[in-house]
Parts: sequence; C-alpha cells; structure tokens
Amino acid sequence: MAIYFDNAATTVLSQRARNVYINTAANFAGNPSSVHREGHKAKEELDRNRDKIAALLGVKSTSLIFTSGATESITAFFSSLLWQEPGEILVSRIEHEAVSSQMAILKRFGWEVKTLKAKGGFVSVDELKEKLSPKTKVVAVMAVNNVTGAIQDIKGLVTAVREFEKENRKKILFFSDSVQALGKTGLDLSDSDVDGASFSSHKINGPRGVGMLYLKNPNAFRSYAPAGGQESGRRGGTENLPGIAAFAEALSEWYENRVEKEDAIRKINNNLREELSKLKLTILSPENSTPYILSLSATLPSEVFARVLMDKGFCVSSGSACSNNAKGKAESIYEAMGVRHDLAAKAIRISFDNNSTEEEAELLLKAFQEIING
Amino acid sequence: MAIYFDNAATTVLSQRARNVYINTAANFAGNPSSVHREGHKAKEELDRNRDKIAALLGVKSTSLIFTSGATESITAFFSSLLWQEPGEILVSRIEHEAVSSQMAILKRFGWEVKTLKAKGGFVSVDELKEKLSPKTKVVAVMAVNNVTGAIQDIKGLVTAVREFEKENRKKILFFSDSVQALGKTGLDLSDSDVDGASFSSHKINGPRGVGMLYLKNPNAFRSYAPAGGQESGRRGGTENLPGIAAFAEALSEWYENRVEKEDAIRKINNNLREELSKLKLTILSPENSTPYILSLSATLPSEVFARVLMDKGFCVSSGSACSNNAKGKAESIYEAMGVRHDLAAKAIRISFDNNSTEEEAELLLKAFQEIING
Repeated sequence: MAIYFDNAATTVLSQRARNVYINTAANFAGNPSSVHREGHKAKEELDRNRDKIAALLGVKSTSLIFTSGATESITAFFSSLLWQEPGEILVSRIEHEAVSSQMAILKRFGWEVKTLKAKGGFVSVDELKEKLSPKTKVVAVMAVNNVTGAIQDIKGLVTAVREFEKENRKKILFFSDSVQALGKTGLDLSDSDVDGASFSSHKINGPRGVGMLYLKNPNAFRSYAPAGGQESGRRGGTENLPGIAAFAEALSEWYENRVEKEDAIRKINNNLREELSKLKLTILSPENSTPYILSLSATLPSEVFARVLMDKGFCVSSGSACSNNAKGKAESIYEAMGVRHDLAAKAIRISFDNNSTEEEAELLLKAFQEIING
Repeated sequence: MAIYFDNAATTVLSQRARNVYINTAANFAGNPSSVHREGHKAKEELDRNRDKIAALLGVKSTSLIFTSGATESITAFFSSLLWQEPGEILVSRIEHEAVSSQMAILKRFGWEVKTLKAKGGFVSVDELKEKLSPKTKVVAVMAVNNVTGAIQDIKGLVTAVREFEKENRKKILFFSDSVQALGKTGLDLSDSDVDGASFSSHKINGPRGVGMLYLKNPNAFRSYAPAGGQESGRRGGTENLPGIAAFAEALSEWYENRVEKEDAIRKINNNLREELSKLKLTILSPENSTPYILSLSATLPSEVFARVLMDKGFCVSSGSACSNNAKGKAESIYEAMGVRHDLAAKAIRISFDNNSTEEEAELLLKAFQEIING
C-alpha cells in the first residue's frame, strides 16, 4: 500500500463518517420532502446536521445550502448572476478551474471579466483597490490556494471591497472558494464578511459527492436550478442525507482538538520544508501557507519525479489533481505568482490530512534524499 | 416501522449497494484525476462501472456522464443550450419541476417555450406534429410520469421529430427525463433515438446524490460547468466513485430477473387497482402505466387521507414528494391530463419497488377498506 501525500486532491473516508453514512441510510430512509412520518424524520435529521455544521463554522443555519460538492456550489453561485444585469467581475488568477471556467458563460452574456495577479502567491489588497470600479459587481478570491497552500488575506480584501461599496453605494458580492480552508487556518467565515463561499466534504475525510454553499444573504440569491424547491428553493434535487450526515460527522471529527491536530501537521510540514531546503530544493509554498500543503520544485520534470516517488511507494501530486491537465494548471498558477518557468515545470505538491504521521514524512524525506543524492 | 409505499419519491439503499459503497470507499480511495497509482486505480474502477451500466442499458460507455442526480443531469442538459442561439422549445405540461423550472432562464435569454398537453395522461404524437416548427430546437417529454406512472410514447414522439427534421434539415434535440423508467418498462434508450436522458440512482435502491446524463452525441455537448475537465470535460467536480459503484450495483441487482420482478409488482398493482375500484375509488393512473406507480382519487382531501393512512402505519404520497408544494404540483399534472378538480384534490400516489410484497399490499387494502367502510 502506497503512503498517501495527495490529501489536497482527496482524502480517505473516515471510519466515523462511514458509520454515520451507513446508519443514516438505514434509519432515515425517507425523502425529506415527503409529508409522511419517514419524510418528517428525514427532514429533521437534515436540519440537525445543518445546525451542527453551522455551529462549527459560527454561521447561521439558514446560510448553508447543501450541494454535491464545491464545483456545484461555485457553479450555483456564478450562474445565479445570470439573473442580474451584467457588470464587471474581478477574479484572481490563482482560482481553481471550477471558478475560472465559469467566466466563459458570464462573458457570453455581457459580463466583463478582469483578473487580479498574485505576485508571490498572494492577491494584493492594493491591486484590488486600484481595480475596483463603479461597474464592479463581483470579486472572487479563494481562501487558500490549492496548488501552493497560500492563505489569502480575505479579511483585508473584503474590507477594501466594503469601503469601496460605502463610497459608491452599490453592493459588491465577494465570493471565496474555501475548499482548502475548511476546518483549517485560513477560514474565517464568521469574521470576514464574505457573501458566498464553497466547500467540499471529501477534502476533510468526508464522503465524495457532498459539498456546501455558504450565502451571507440567502434571500438575495436566486437559484438557477430550483427544481422541486429543496434547500429553501436554493438547490433542487433530493437531499443526499446519508452523505450530508457523514460530512457533518467528518467535520465534527476534524474540529475535535483542531488546533492540536493542525499544530502536529505544521510541525511535520515545517520539518520537511527545512530538510528539503537542505537538499537545495526550492520551496514554492510561501511562508504564510496552510500546513496541509507543501509545494516545492524538485530536480526532474514534475511527472517524472512524481513517478519516481510512486515507484518508491509515495503518492504526491504533480499539479492540482483536479484537472485533466493538472500540470498545465499548476504552471499557470505559478506563472501568476511570478515563479520562474523552469522551477514551475518541476513542481511537486505534498499534501497532508490529520492522519499523516511524522514517520511517513520521514520515509518520504528519505526517498527524496535517495533520489537526489543517488 | 411504517410500511413504505412511497418508492417513487425515494427507495431504501440495498444491502448490496451499501456494501459496494463501503468497499469502494476503502479500496479505491484515490482521486480518479490523480496521476499516481491510487488515482489510476480509481479511474479504472470508474470506467469499469460506466461500462457495466452502459451494457445494462445497451448504450455506449462514452454516452454516459455521471452526475449528482437527475436534477443536475437535467440542469446540465438545458444549461448547455445557453451556448446556442436561442430558438423554440416544446415541453410537455407533465414534466417534473426539475425540467419545467429550467424554462425560466432560457426564456430570459430569448428562448420561446411552448407546451404540449397530455390529455388523458399522454403527450400526443399528433399534437407534437402540429406544434413542430422550423424554429423548434428542443423537444422535452419525460419517459414515465412521476405522478401517474403514465408511460409516454417516446418512440412515436421521437419518430415524429426525426421525420420533421428530415423535411427541415435542421437538428432537433429530443430530451427525455427517464427517472421513473430506469430499470423498468418504458425505458428504451437503445431503440428510441433520444438525444438526452436523465437518471437517478436513489429511485432504484441506489445511493442518494448519484445520477446520470445520457447523451447520444456527447461531442456535440458543451458543458456549462466543465471545472477540472472530469467526465471528458462534460461534468466538473471530483467523481463520487463509491456512489457511482453503488449505483451500478443497485442497477445490476434491479436488472437480475428484471421481467419476473416487474411481473410480480404488476400483479400487486393490478390487484390493488381492481380491489380499490370496487371501493368506488377513481383510479387516476391510466391503463398504460408503470406497474411501480398506482394513483387514485380517495374519499378525503389528499393530505388528510395520507395522514389517516400514516396513522394506520402506511407511507403514501399526496403528490410527487419532490416538491415543497407537492400537492399543488400533482394537481397541475392532473389538470394537464384533464382530470376533474375535485378528483385531483383527493389524489393519492402508491408506489412500489421490487421489495414490495403482496402481504404489504393486502394490509394497505385492508386499511383503505376500514377507512372507507368506517
């Protein structure tokens, strides 16, 4: 069995989440929209899980819409803009493709899309201030970058938007894809005043096919696909209750001793960072990054180095893994950061979850040493 | 524990599907888009399941796109139309809200929406022929109605469209929401020549949050949300592999002795239909309906009668259960059929899966007899 360092791509379903999935499927088999007893029971269980997650994140239950994943959450947010008159969107150049690919349909219907650079890995508050205009209707900057782990200054960016709003007396929506921030440093929903955020369950040991859209003001949101009116008319389709309950369980588990767990991972990350630097490898993750991601430039082209590591029994990523052209995508992120092309072409991403151990990291380090020192 | 007759709303996850879910989550934990060994293993398992379902349905593997459910499949199909120049859509008046709610955004962008009646429960080939025009770009008629169970003449309707196409030399897309037809009489993908169809896993004892979009010509389809390019660029988002594998298992199970199982349910349905008629109740499901649904007009308003049955331990539906206003929605379907308003207001839907038994149906009949004869 390989040692798995690709947790930013996906994590293993936790035992506790698995058990909740099974029990919920067996004990709450009704459709939450059915009016009979089995339906009511399912609806109550759905709401109980929503309340549980809302309490963990410090937000109102009504602000959380369950979806099939981050991509759907993002699509739901941007497609809802099609109900509005077109305007201008400022979007960072380091967004996940789930966000950047949404720009095409908006452009088709008259939206103007402008990008924000990310010199050194971070979207700058000053650049945002310069680019905000009376036409700006939406700003999109992710919370934590999935390729480098860089934690964006969402609070500073949102504050700049709110100040501009006051002067211009026109609402601007701030959307923050927060997949790599959920349960981790870099997520600050109760404090940062974003209007929308997207989350995924399978990045924190929850099941695949479950995600969430946070909306500060759900009443201002008009769904593109209300279908049967589920999720208060904001997301149609029968609710995936076993998946949602398992997601809530995985998140609860993640939040238990959250800080201690993250500190342990930070120690692993910092140690690897230090030891890999000694091998003269260039670390690509900026200082202010999530401890769950460590990206670096290796000594061979990304895929080659990843394959050599695979042969030694380690799974790492040569890109973001969320793309059929993961390497190309990662390179475009590095380009936006200003990383030299030759370094970007050798980029490797090591990513952790709370089950990652010091021992595994030591084995990985040994593998790096063997490859590089021959 | 209640006796469950609301299987058209949702079914219980089968033991076999559950076991496959658990085993797949444990043994194929990688992200199918990851380039390392765990990723490749997951990708192979994904393709194996796609092949398995394609073989059951008699279609090409490349024509199947996995989604989070029927609603997403439907939304994906109709939103892809936004890339085209607007034209005219003919849509039946008995569609599920997942389809009918998609008309709003299309209208906003210039599409003309015309409806097809369903006198007696069926969309008429003659009416379709009358309404087809050189402007028609899309026709949408579901395979099996979810409120009455009426099996639509999809083959006849598609043939009419293809003949019109030949005269006009302009492609018309025929979409058929096939949720209530999957694994049942009324589904004829390999023969009927539809361009698109939507499916749901949880209506055939598979997991929630899994569905499928069939596309006869996937290369002509441009996704609204390609994100990371998964599903050959036709549906973004990390693939829900455990859910997909469990769906494939549930469908395989459904197809084992399919005809015998359906015959057993037909016998139960026919017997109930006969016995309930003797109680002077009006049967609302037309003769040519799926055996899995039996709708009738009871002696009290829908919700009241459903509640009385619930008190006796039976779950039935007073509407389609897929709507916050299920009763209103069911009534609009009955209105389109030409059912008298007073009868529609007392509509009850009894729906079966392959686990439904004669004994359960006899108990339900006894409950009806007690309520009606006092």
